[in-house]
Amino acid sequence: MTTLGLHLIADIHGATALDDSARIETALRAAARAARVTVLEVRLHHFGAGCGVTGVVLLAESHISIHTWPEHALAAVDIFVCGPHADADAALAEICRQLGGAVVMRQAIDRLAV
Amino acid sequence: MTTLGLHLIADIHGATALDDSARIETALRAAARAARVTVLEVRLHHFGAGCGVTGVVLLAESHISIHTWPEHALAAVDIFVCGPHADADAALAEICRQLGGAVVMRQAIDRLAV
Repeated sequence: MTTLGLHLIADIHGATALDDSARIETALRAAARAARVTVLEVRLHHFGAGCGVTGVVLLAESHISIHTWPEHALAAVDIFVCGPHADADAALAEICRQLGGAVVMRQAIDRLAV
Repeated sequence: MTTLGLHLIADIHGATALDDSARIETALRAAARAARVTVLEVRLHHFGAGCGVTGVVLLAESHISIHTWPEHALAAVDIFVCGPHADADAALAEICRQLGGAVVMRQAIDRLAV
């Protein structure tokens, strides 16, 4: 069986800057570079002072997303990439390097069997 | 254990209109209504005539995304929602109703244990 996509899912605990949309955008763009994927667009939404941020990167190879809950020191990260050259694990490592924290849940799911 | 989010992952085979960004936007907005969630922004990217579409809905409750491969009649759908009132299964059913096709892979993942 061949699959078109790899979807890496991770929850991160103990990260910092989870209410800082500029830091989160920097982390997402660095993650895309680490994964060797092509950014089409980055969209962020801040839920208000002291609250979390949603960030989504539309990629030529699918997407990276993050949702943060600073009050719980939690972030939910998705790295969905297609193609043999994309490195989802490198993207996740880069997000952890940028924001700190530890991966407390991780699943790698093969998507789109053809 | 309590979790903040539910992430419903599904691959759909045999759907139509997978190269039609207007139909896909309509399906995504209908899915959000079905799930009883709040749309912040819808972003779409069409990869060219006959090619697939990426669509992402930023929600107050996280996100819905779709990536399509019309040449394989495949779509990868993610419905990531938070809060007790969001109905991820209703969103997935609405996308299938709008675009046709059958769910060939489905996983429901609890996110963000607190």
